[in-house]
Amino acid sequence: MATSSAEGPDLAMLAHRLTGALQRALRQAQADDGDSVIGPRHRAVLICLAPTGSRAVDVARESGQHKQVVGTLVDDLEKGGYIRRQPDPVDRRGKLIVPTALGLEQVARTKALMAAIEDDIVAALGAQRYRDFKLTCERVVKILTDDGTE
Amino acid sequence: MATSSAEGPDLAMLAHRLTGALQRALRQAQADDGDSVIGPRHRAVLICLAPTGSRAVDVARESGQHKQVVGTLVDDLEKGGYIRRQPDPVDRRGKLIVPTALGLEQVARTKALMAAIEDDIVAALGAQRYRDFKLTCERVVKILTDDGTE
Repeated sequence: MATSSAEGPDLAMLAHRLTGALQRALRQAQADDGDSVIGPRHRAVLICLAPTGSRAVDVARESGQHKQVVGTLVDDLEKGGYIRRQPDPVDRRGKLIVPTALGLEQVARTKALMAAIEDDIVAALGAQRYRDFKLTCERVVKILTDDGTE
Repeated sequence: MATSSAEGPDLAMLAHRLTGALQRALRQAQADDGDSVIGPRHRAVLICLAPTGSRAVDVARESGQHKQVVGTLVDDLEKGGYIRRQPDPVDRRGKLIVPTALGLEQVARTKALMAAIEDDIVAALGAQRYRDFKLTCERVVKILTDDGTE
């Protein structure tokens, strides 16, 4: 236990710093853009929605947030007019969370801002290294998700 | 804008998934350990504290969380007996957040659990690739923090 991985900050701290740095960069970009600022956790939900609607459980998995938290965020988004809930055609007891036109516009704008932020990282890091980094990040998530902690 | 970086999920989504997967892995490890479960955001604060105490502003920077959020989390940690606040000897208006014995024990236990989780990742990914991944993660945080979004 705690061999090479014990050097420097652990992955949980790094992940927190990464999330925090991204949130600040995005908030700054949104402010520059004159955009209404949606919280980062709301954004994480909104960006996960399929245009035809998604189930809360899938949004929770996709966004890495707890289902209860997603419920609260979806309530906020509904109040703001970014989403609406409608019955799931394939599950009568279920609801789909469907982005509104305003919600889709917000997603498109946020995606463009994020792409610009990522281009800055690519410029500083190199395309190959950044691509490797993202692939490894996905792989780490998969390792954590598939294997648990054994 | 949005060149190679536009493929696959953007970095904000990856960072969210990574944080979520780590939180679940850690929660699982804590449950196996019979440990009392502190929320991941509380843990992020607790783990940042210097043994002699830290200022809230430094904890916010270190943990990547907003200063107001840190204040709330510190209130919770104080109620749980994990930290106490005491006057900052070098800044009379300021307070230091000092981990208690219980808090330090919690940090040590969490660090051991995180190290075991990281060892699982190293086993699946290889030590070199994981080391590169963490270094690149730190570099990305630095790029985001130094340059803003320009």
